[in-house]
Amino acid sequence: MTQAVRHDSMRARNLGVVLAEVRRSGPVTRAALAEITGLTKTTVSKMVGDLLQAGMVAESGTLRDGERGRPGTAVALSGARVAALGLEVNVNHLSACVVDLTLAVRLRYAQAVDNRAASPVETLSHLGRLAHKAVDEARLAGLVIAGTTLAVPGLVDGGLVHTAPNLGWRDVRVAELLDFPVEVDNEANLAALGELWFGSAPDDFLHVSGEIGIGAGLVVGGTLFRGARGLAGELGHVVVVPDGPECRCGGRGCLEQYAGQDALLRAAGLDGMAEGVPVLLERLEAGDEDALRACRRAGQALGVALTSAVHLTDPGTIVLGGVFAPLFPWLRRPVHQTMTDRLAAMRRSVPDLAVSRLGGDAATLGAAGQVIHRVVADPWSHVATARTDPGPR
Amino acid sequence: MTQAVRHDSMRARNLGVVLAEVRRSGPVTRAALAEITGLTKTTVSKMVGDLLQAGMVAESGTLRDGERGRPGTAVALSGARVAALGLEVNVNHLSACVVDLTLAVRLRYAQAVDNRAASPVETLSHLGRLAHKAVDEARLAGLVIAGTTLAVPGLVDGGLVHTAPNLGWRDVRVAELLDFPVEVDNEANLAALGELWFGSAPDDFLHVSGEIGIGAGLVVGGTLFRGARGLAGELGHVVVVPDGPECRCGGRGCLEQYAGQDALLRAAGLDGMAEGVPVLLERLEAGDEDALRACRRAGQALGVALTSAVHLTDPGTIVLGGVFAPLFPWLRRPVHQTMTDRLAAMRRSVPDLAVSRLGGDAATLGAAGQVIHRVVADPWSHVATARTDPGPR
Repeated sequence: MTQAVRHDSMRARNLGVVLAEVRRSGPVTRAALAEITGLTKTTVSKMVGDLLQAGMVAESGTLRDGERGRPGTAVALSGARVAALGLEVNVNHLSACVVDLTLAVRLRYAQAVDNRAASPVETLSHLGRLAHKAVDEARLAGLVIAGTTLAVPGLVDGGLVHTAPNLGWRDVRVAELLDFPVEVDNEANLAALGELWFGSAPDDFLHVSGEIGIGAGLVVGGTLFRGARGLAGELGHVVVVPDGPECRCGGRGCLEQYAGQDALLRAAGLDGMAEGVPVLLERLEAGDEDALRACRRAGQALGVALTSAVHLTDPGTIVLGGVFAPLFPWLRRPVHQTMTDRLAAMRRSVPDLAVSRLGGDAATLGAAGQVIHRVVADPWSHVATARTDPGPR
Repeated sequence: MTQAVRHDSMRARNLGVVLAEVRRSGPVTRAALAEITGLTKTTVSKMVGDLLQAGMVAESGTLRDGERGRPGTAVALSGARVAALGLEVNVNHLSACVVDLTLAVRLRYAQAVDNRAASPVETLSHLGRLAHKAVDEARLAGLVIAGTTLAVPGLVDGGLVHTAPNLGWRDVRVAELLDFPVEVDNEANLAALGELWFGSAPDDFLHVSGEIGIGAGLVVGGTLFRGARGLAGELGHVVVVPDGPECRCGGRGCLEQYAGQDALLRAAGLDGMAEGVPVLLERLEAGDEDALRACRRAGQALGVALTSAVHLTDPGTIVLGGVFAPLFPWLRRPVHQTMTDRLAAMRRSVPDLAVSRLGGDAATLGAAGQVIHRVVADPWSHVATARTDPGPR
C-alpha cells in the first residue's frame, strides 16, 4: 500500500517533469527528453505514452537530436483534447471562453446583461446556460473540459463570494448555485493572470481592470501577489479624497467614485448603462468638452491612487485594461502627468503606462488559463479522468 | 577541476542541510542527523566537524536517540563565535547592534544625533567609529563578525542610496564611504524583518516604522515583499489629501505630512527635535489637549493611509513600531476607528492592530538578523573565513 502510494507519487512527479519539458522545448524526441530530465528512456517512454493516451501531447514528425543523434519521433504539446472553461460575471456582462492546453483560445462568448437588476440566483442560472452551451460546442470540437474557473468582481473566499459591492452580492455561495464544479476567484486577479499569459505584459506589472468597479492585480516575477488572505489589489477602494462621496463599499472618496465606469459616464453627462462607453468614445473622438473633462479628472484621480500603489507595491509597468483600454488615448496623459508630478523627484523612474491588448477579455482568459496551468503543473490528477472520459458525444 | 568544483558544491549543500537541521532540532546527535537528512554517518560527522571548527555548533552533552538508540554526543547551534553587525542611520539617531548565530543580542549602542545638520560624509564617519567600537567589543567577547548590514531611511539600490528625503541624501555611495564591507538596505524593510525574527509578530503582517519618515515592510508567509525593484513599502508617501501640503519627496499631502514625527510634534505645539517625543509623551499622560488632538489627527491620517494599504496589500496584522510604539496607547483608537469605518462593511474583518515590542531597535536588529540568516543559509562561504580568522585579539 505505502509502496503503491510512493510509486504513484513518483509517477505523478515524473509525468509533470516530462510534460513541462515537452511544453518548454517541444517538438522534442523521447531520447532528448531522457537526456534533459535525467530520467531513464524507459520511464520517459512510459510517461510519453500516458500523455499521448490522455491527448496532452501528440507526435509531430521525425526530428534529429543534435548533430550526432539518430532521428526519432518528436512529441509536442497538443491542443486537440484537453481544454479549460473560463467564465466571468461582471456588472454589465457575462462571458465565457474555452482555451486549450496550448493556451489557444478556441471559443468566446459574451453577453451584455445588467446583473445589478437580477438576483444572484438569476444571474448564475443565466451563466450556467452560457457555460453549458460552451461545453457542448467544445465537445463537438473534440475537446474535454478539464476544469472551470469563474471570475467575480468581489472578495472571494473559496466558493463563497463574501462581497461584490457593485453587483450588490453579499455572502453568495456561488459554487453551490451552479450544477458543475467551479473554482471562484477575483476578477482583477484573473485579469492580471490573463495579461501575463495571453497579453504582452512583462513579468512585473500592475494590471488595472477598469469596469464599474476598479480592481488591480500585481504580478511580481511572473507570480500573482495575493496578500495574506487573497484579498489584495482592491485599487478601486484606495482613498483618493478622505472626505469624498460615499462609496458602495462603505468607505468614502474611493477611486471608484472618481474613475469607475459609472462615475466617469455620469461626469461626462451620460447614463451609466452598458451602451454608455461606446457613446463616451464617440463624444471623445468628436472633441466633446464634457467628455474630455470627465476623462481628464478620472485620469487625475487614477494617477493619485496609482501614486499610492507605486509607493506601496513598486510595480514594474502599469497596464490599463477593461474599459480603460479603449479610453487609454484620453487617460494616458493625465495619469502619467499626475504620477510624474508626485513620484519623479523621489523615485529613479516612474513606472511605464501601457494599454492592455485584451481589454475586457482578460479576466475570462485568465480564468481558463489558471485551469490549464494547474493541469500542466499536475497532469497526473488529470490523466485518469481524461483516459476514462468517453470523449465527444 | 570540474570534479573539484562539483565536490565543493555538494559539500556546501550538505553543510547547509546539516546546519539547518541542527538549528531546527538541536541538541541532536550525529546519528539522528544522519537519519533525518538521509546523508551517510560519515558525511554528517565530517560536516559536524567543519561546523565545530568554525564555531557554528558546539557539543552539548550526551543524548539518547529515541528509546532504542545508543547514547551519543549531541551538538547544538552555538552563539559563541559567529556574529553579525547591524547598523542604522536615521534622521535623529545612529545605532549598532551585534547579534550572534543563535539570534541572541550581544551588544547594543544608540546615539542621538541630528543627522540632517551633517553631511553624508560626516554622518558615515561618525557611524564608522560606532561600528569599529562595536566590532572591537565583540572581539573581546570572542565573537567574529561575519558581515554587516546598514539600515537607511531611503530608496536603496545596491550600495547606493538613491534618495533619503528626510536625511537630505541623494545619490550617496554609502558602501564607498565606509572602510569595511557593508550591505545597505531600506530601514522599513529591515525593521519588518527585525519584527519577524526578534519580535512577537506572526508570519503575515505589515510593520509600520514611525520615525521622522514613515516606512512599512510587508511580510507574507514569513517572506518580505519587496516589489519589482525593491522599493515597496513607502507608506509615508501614500496620498492622504491630494491637494495637501508639499512633502520633501516632491509629492503633496503624503501621510508623513500628517503623522510623521515632525508633523506630529509641530501639531502638538512642540519643536521637532530629538527630545520632542519624550516631552510629547509627558504631555499626553498629563492630558494636554493640544497633544491629544495632534495624536488623534495623526491617527486618523494613519488610518486613511492604512485603509489604502489594506485594500492594496491585504496584510494579516498591522504592527506599529518606531515612535508609534510608545505613542500606541493614543494612536490605537483613532487608527482602528478610521479603518473600521472605511473597511468593515466590505471586508470580513479589519486587520488587528498590534504594537511592536522592539520599537526603535527593529531595523538594527533586522539588519544583523539578515546577515545571520544568510550565514545559516550558506555556511560554506563562511566556514573558510571563520577557520582562518585568528580569533579575538
